[in-house]
Amino acid sequence: MAAELTAPELIAKHRPTLDQALEAIRTRAYWSPHPEHPKAYGEDGSLDAAAGKAAFDALLGNRLDLTDQPGIDDWVGEEVSPYGIELGVTYPHADLDVLLPAMRAGRRAWRDAGAELRAMVCLEILKRISDRTHQFAHAVMHTSGQAFMMAFQAGGPHAQDRGLEAVAYAYAEQIRTPGTAEWTKPQGKRDPLALAKTFTPVPRGIGLVIGCNTFPTWNGYPGLFASLATGNAVLVKPHPRAVLPLALTVRIARDVLAEAGFDPNLVALAAERPGEGIAKTLALRPEIKIIDYTGSTAFGDWLEANARQAQVYTEKAGVNTVIVHSTDDYKGMLSNLAFSLSLYSGQMCTTPQNLLIPRDGITTDQGPKTFDEVTADLARAVDGLLGDDARANALLGAIVNPDVKARLEAAAGLGEVALASREVTNPEFPGAVVRTPVIVKLDGAKPDDEAAYMSECFGPVSFAVAVDSVTDAAELLRRTVREKGAMTVGAYTTDAEVEETIQEVCLDESAQLSLNLTGGVYVNQTAAFSDFHGSGGNPAANAALTDAAFVANRFRVVEVRRQA
Amino acid sequence: MAAELTAPELIAKHRPTLDQALEAIRTRAYWSPHPEHPKAYGEDGSLDAAAGKAAFDALLGNRLDLTDQPGIDDWVGEEVSPYGIELGVTYPHADLDVLLPAMRAGRRAWRDAGAELRAMVCLEILKRISDRTHQFAHAVMHTSGQAFMMAFQAGGPHAQDRGLEAVAYAYAEQIRTPGTAEWTKPQGKRDPLALAKTFTPVPRGIGLVIGCNTFPTWNGYPGLFASLATGNAVLVKPHPRAVLPLALTVRIARDVLAEAGFDPNLVALAAERPGEGIAKTLALRPEIKIIDYTGSTAFGDWLEANARQAQVYTEKAGVNTVIVHSTDDYKGMLSNLAFSLSLYSGQMCTTPQNLLIPRDGITTDQGPKTFDEVTADLARAVDGLLGDDARANALLGAIVNPDVKARLEAAAGLGEVALASREVTNPEFPGAVVRTPVIVKLDGAKPDDEAAYMSECFGPVSFAVAVDSVTDAAELLRRTVREKGAMTVGAYTTDAEVEETIQEVCLDESAQLSLNLTGGVYVNQTAAFSDFHGSGGNPAANAALTDAAFVANRFRVVEVRRQA
Repeated sequence: MAAELTAPELIAKHRPTLDQALEAIRTRAYWSPHPEHPKAYGEDGSLDAAAGKAAFDALLGNRLDLTDQPGIDDWVGEEVSPYGIELGVTYPHADLDVLLPAMRAGRRAWRDAGAELRAMVCLEILKRISDRTHQFAHAVMHTSGQAFMMAFQAGGPHAQDRGLEAVAYAYAEQIRTPGTAEWTKPQGKRDPLALAKTFTPVPRGIGLVIGCNTFPTWNGYPGLFASLATGNAVLVKPHPRAVLPLALTVRIARDVLAEAGFDPNLVALAAERPGEGIAKTLALRPEIKIIDYTGSTAFGDWLEANARQAQVYTEKAGVNTVIVHSTDDYKGMLSNLAFSLSLYSGQMCTTPQNLLIPRDGITTDQGPKTFDEVTADLARAVDGLLGDDARANALLGAIVNPDVKARLEAAAGLGEVALASREVTNPEFPGAVVRTPVIVKLDGAKPDDEAAYMSECFGPVSFAVAVDSVTDAAELLRRTVREKGAMTVGAYTTDAEVEETIQEVCLDESAQLSLNLTGGVYVNQTAAFSDFHGSGGNPAANAALTDAAFVANRFRVVEVRRQA
Repeated sequence: MAAELTAPELIAKHRPTLDQALEAIRTRAYWSPHPEHPKAYGEDGSLDAAAGKAAFDALLGNRLDLTDQPGIDDWVGEEVSPYGIELGVTYPHADLDVLLPAMRAGRRAWRDAGAELRAMVCLEILKRISDRTHQFAHAVMHTSGQAFMMAFQAGGPHAQDRGLEAVAYAYAEQIRTPGTAEWTKPQGKRDPLALAKTFTPVPRGIGLVIGCNTFPTWNGYPGLFASLATGNAVLVKPHPRAVLPLALTVRIARDVLAEAGFDPNLVALAAERPGEGIAKTLALRPEIKIIDYTGSTAFGDWLEANARQAQVYTEKAGVNTVIVHSTDDYKGMLSNLAFSLSLYSGQMCTTPQNLLIPRDGITTDQGPKTFDEVTADLARAVDGLLGDDARANALLGAIVNPDVKARLEAAAGLGEVALASREVTNPEFPGAVVRTPVIVKLDGAKPDDEAAYMSECFGPVSFAVAVDSVTDAAELLRRTVREKGAMTVGAYTTDAEVEETIQEVCLDESAQLSLNLTGGVYVNQTAAFSDFHGSGGNPAANAALTDAAFVANRFRVVEVRRQA
């Protein structure tokens, strides 16, 4: 088949972007090729707001166009938006004994394409996804429950950044060994020994991406693109409540692969029936050599223990801590924390859960504040931030599923409520379950309270935990990271010694630390090309997004040596 | 404590070597800083042959000087040389509840030293080992059973090369992320967001090196130096029959660490009583976060399945294949193969086991040769190579343990013997068990023969397997690598299409291929900085020596970000 997209065209179009990405991961300065502003879209073939909305609406109630996937034995899908809409989109259900062998067919050509062309194809896929960011925004919003602007940014440009970052790491890793080498070893007076060597990056097999409900694209793209760029085929198994964004991604990837002259079956979708639990079956298939997973600790641990034939990369649950010791910007601290607790109703793996505050209070630029004052002021800050319903809806989004709602409702019974959760009405989507966060006071010295603050309570629930001293806070932080893991740690202190203590805990327990954030950067947000997402060194995740370790074992290098 | 070795001194002394190593792993051209010739030693503080022998003799019958290790509760050791000498050296047996906590004490200073200084300390350790290469040669000879010259080269310079290679990869990996970054994100008309970030490589904990009997230093150094250079402490658990070379290594490492101002307990030895099986206990200790293992498939698989708290790097058993299809240098092929089968009595994980030869014969520069002719000619080549007892002893070394001897004796019953094994007398060491290799003819079409050629028969045993065609040979190669794994594959063919077919199998199954070797390079030898040892992509090993994947997950990067 003649390729519609030739290698020289792809290289001319995308190599400069790849080079910029390679420079960004080297300097870790700010960089992104994907605009964050919705109005930046609509020219050069990208969809504007109206066209994106129309493209999303056109999907509803229909089969997603993946009829070209091999081994379709049914069409499935029962997604209901957290905003109350039934999506009515159905997706191919696969006969794995047909689909998985078909995914191997294109393996050799994809391997022989080499690292650069594979990267270019991945960048073309990302470009087409970027062009449809407005459509993806609605798809992410109506599966994750994120508010539109967050779905647009986190599900669009930020997810694309993470995908591109993975491609850059994958490319950099594959070219570290040269394609050929001449090896000549002196032998004194005799002729030297001489060999001609070739080195070829070879894929492991099929990568399985197990998507999550809350960030289908942001958490799905790193693994998808890391595996694809290193020569593997990729099977995408979305969360049953968040199929659409990844199914659209698969459709685009298949189109680009075919246009570039490769087998479209290098990327495929595995949708499932309700309760089918296909992830377990897939994870143990011998064809699956790589697994990328985001979700519960229980299933992540199961994958790590049982999917022994595969490289398993997991992001699981953790308990994120913020230590509040002192600040020279009390107002900035409160508003920063209030935003972090509220964003997407606390349904981020990076949202702070435990706020450790000395029971004797803290020092601030507004004078000393007692534990109760800090807690009350934070509650007021959240109230202020979310007082206006329109702004509350724009920040909170919707509760993603009934489990989160149940946890939120139960949280009020765990201790003294410093800030009660309230219902917010969404006039555009009356079916949406929208709730403000709850803050519950606990005592770090009470063994009864420990069960609450030492477990992940995913959702809009935070605990203000009174501790005897900042030393105790640091020790509790250490124990929490070591036993439960953490995606993020935050701290507020103006004391260099305290800062050093907290930093040492984070270095010792491998946790990513944000210090004294009072402005427009939040502890729960990371930027691709600069911030690592997780460390891979504590129980919250066995991998970081993205570093060399995330890509280096997705391929192997095969050497062929010949006498020269 | 004031360091006797200062950082500037170490950098001045070793940075040029590190830079050369970094260049070598980038080009993969020939390079080594460690002389192969015994006569190259004796100046600049290195031991010459006599001094090395004397230093080895001085160890015999004594406690190895490791009295400074914490938690010594006994002295153990019952090594008997395969050459018949009782070494009589004893080593500290550790109370793990004392030793392991003590090994954590120096962690912070070693982490804070940074990647470059850690690399310099590792290079100083390697330099001191290199200076004592003659002493190590005897220690390796009298634990592994290698002949002196092989023990000298493989146990000395080649092992040191592999250690240095691991240091270079570890260093390169740790500096891929900058130490600091300024991140400034434009915000349209508003002030940009600005963060100052630091990135610190942090160790995982304690690395455990589980040594093997046959190549204690060569197989032990990559993991030891990769873990140490990435900031971890390292506990060395040698094979009970091959303690001495690694114990000497630990002694040197502890001295250098102390002289450079670090805690010597960052490196320690765990010797064991006969039958104690301490590796299982150690592998499950929570302090152990990295394991490097060389040995049986059964225990390697057990480690991978059970040591879930650790990164586990294994080199296990495989079945190595050579396909013999055609050659334009029949004599060179035979002598090359004869050497490969004979070297160290076939007791290398890289020694060819199955020689797949078409039953209709092969084409050569000396006319067509039938299966029987090839087999007989190869037998004659081995006989010729080993006909002289002095040369036989110098090439074969001694049988490392009674299991190998028993397998060798049983092999003759597996099929028609093309070349019988014979006993060789070692006049210098009458107690040595020295045997020439056996070659047994099997039929690839007979199911009964499959049990033999599809199992690893470690030792001086090879099978000449008759196959119907070279296509069948390629398919058998594929099945062997996929099911049993392979450290090496060799092939002889003058046919481009056959070469392509075999190469494709190796790329598809991740096996390292040597083509048409007829001179002084052998399929069972690899050179550090250029050749990968294993691929990490088939069942013989889950890691390759050495690539980025071997080092990238031994540390994590912790980011601390502050508002700028």
